[in-house]
Amino acid sequence: MHCDQTLSELRDIIQRKLQDLANKTRPESLYEPIRYALAQPGKQLRPILLLLCNEAVGGSLEDAVDAAAAIEVIHTFTLVHDDIMDHDELRRGRQTVSRRWDENVAILAGDGLLVMGYERLAHLPPRHLPVLLRLYSRAILEVCEGQALDKAFELRDAISLPEYYEMIEKKTGRLFALACEAGAILGNGNPAQVTACKKFGAALGRAFQLQDDLLDVIGDEQTLGKDVGSDLEEGKKTFLLTHARMHANPQQRQELDTLCSQHPLHEAAIREIIQLFDELGTLAAAQHEIDACLTIASSQLGFLPSSNARQNLAQLLLKLARRNH
Amino acid sequence: MHCDQTLSELRDIIQRKLQDLANKTRPESLYEPIRYALAQPGKQLRPILLLLCNEAVGGSLEDAVDAAAAIEVIHTFTLVHDDIMDHDELRRGRQTVSRRWDENVAILAGDGLLVMGYERLAHLPPRHLPVLLRLYSRAILEVCEGQALDKAFELRDAISLPEYYEMIEKKTGRLFALACEAGAILGNGNPAQVTACKKFGAALGRAFQLQDDLLDVIGDEQTLGKDVGSDLEEGKKTFLLTHARMHANPQQRQELDTLCSQHPLHEAAIREIIQLFDELGTLAAAQHEIDACLTIASSQLGFLPSSNARQNLAQLLLKLARRNH
Repeated sequence: MHCDQTLSELRDIIQRKLQDLANKTRPESLYEPIRYALAQPGKQLRPILLLLCNEAVGGSLEDAVDAAAAIEVIHTFTLVHDDIMDHDELRRGRQTVSRRWDENVAILAGDGLLVMGYERLAHLPPRHLPVLLRLYSRAILEVCEGQALDKAFELRDAISLPEYYEMIEKKTGRLFALACEAGAILGNGNPAQVTACKKFGAALGRAFQLQDDLLDVIGDEQTLGKDVGSDLEEGKKTFLLTHARMHANPQQRQELDTLCSQHPLHEAAIREIIQLFDELGTLAAAQHEIDACLTIASSQLGFLPSSNARQNLAQLLLKLARRNH
Repeated sequence: MHCDQTLSELRDIIQRKLQDLANKTRPESLYEPIRYALAQPGKQLRPILLLLCNEAVGGSLEDAVDAAAAIEVIHTFTLVHDDIMDHDELRRGRQTVSRRWDENVAILAGDGLLVMGYERLAHLPPRHLPVLLRLYSRAILEVCEGQALDKAFELRDAISLPEYYEMIEKKTGRLFALACEAGAILGNGNPAQVTACKKFGAALGRAFQLQDDLLDVIGDEQTLGKDVGSDLEEGKKTFLLTHARMHANPQQRQELDTLCSQHPLHEAAIREIIQLFDELGTLAAAQHEIDACLTIASSQLGFLPSSNARQNLAQLLLKLARRNH
């Protein structure tokens, strides 16, 4: 498959860039956790989206590769700090930085990653730098806003769906949208193309987060690389919980709240919750929302000229639609 | 005094810029702590140094004021995160962010501040942006390295003076040097002037940290706005402790270690430690080092043309020499 080859080639290019970045060694207590966080590559969706959008509007890889590395490093920063705040123990199948070392080490490693991401931007073509520095900064600040909402919502009994969507648009959607928009800008795309790419990324990010919410309860622990049901256990206001509480009768709502308040949350309770989600049409609604977002994303690709890169973007979208981790 | 007026005018300009920055309100859980951290101005040494160095090489305020705001916001970021790591309760006479809210809030507020600092840089004259983005990033990464060394040293019994100086050069000296260097670059200073400004800042930063170490034991709690003896209590490897352990005989070293290991560290113990520092010539040595650094800083000013700004820099240096908080 030509497409897969290209995607894996892009992944290699990004991974090499990230390894180059993590070549500092002293002090060990800063750079060892940074290398650790960068060494276990995730899906690298954001940098790949950036490079594909760049290519899709006719840009050159060379002009965009530092922006791609930057967005992956910055995404890694958000994971390292989020894992502290959420007391998560597993990430990509390994211990989180805060668990393997401690919270202080994870705070500093995250800070270092964020700065290293920004440092990468200094290598961009100077004509694009002011705009991109502003875009990256606003996007990262919105990711912080999204995480702040996420933590604030944990303390509440329930949130509305608009609140849910505001939170995930900032926390997850924003970096996806940034990746696609930045790629199109660096590729000198016209305004319509830049807007299409941004919308494509935002819709994809929304679908991605909805899938995350879904996989948290119906995913496989081994494949996921993290605990199943951890969102529920942490009191995260996912789409599922929000939708289910809205559609539950008082008795079902009571049952749901009682189940969710168990610590630790055993497999049996998770199964009961899933059954409730199913009865309330929540699982079907989540899948429906995901499909709707992916359709919006797909439609944006029509604004881009036909090319290998556009085909790869469409292919990536299909892969995401089928993802199980 | 014309000089003081100018300094206080500069302080007002910076403070207004910072207030403009902190005008976002939602989500409260992110922006309230950010406003809180920015609202209690410190000495604003770094932005003032930046603006004065800029002016001293003939630059215009307008070109440099965003870089000045950025460095103060970034300095505030380091304080907010350091206070988490050090479990500090007081900063500038008020509760720290991590104490007033919690650690998660402080992690996010610090992240937000760092990003807001970078966002400011997007407003700089584009011709200077690539160089400054790289300089800022390298400097902030070194501040992280310094903090990592600081925390790693806490776990050790003792460190050498070269290790101490490496730590403070990164943790404190680097932002001072950056401020002065960035100011000179933005003012289009020639290479000799830029180097002189950078050296001036580095020496001033070193003196400043040595003074901090000294004030931690001989300062006044009210004036300092933080607990006296907190470095000792946290096991910080200050100049004083490092010097004293080097010059103590085995009995004195034993006495010092026993005193420092007390938790909480009462006033009586602090008095005994100070007496030991005095007997070992440590207080005098610290003062000698401070004077030496200030002399180096002062000599660098000779590379700058005579001007009001240069006079202000000299005046600032004298003020720092006499500081008690």
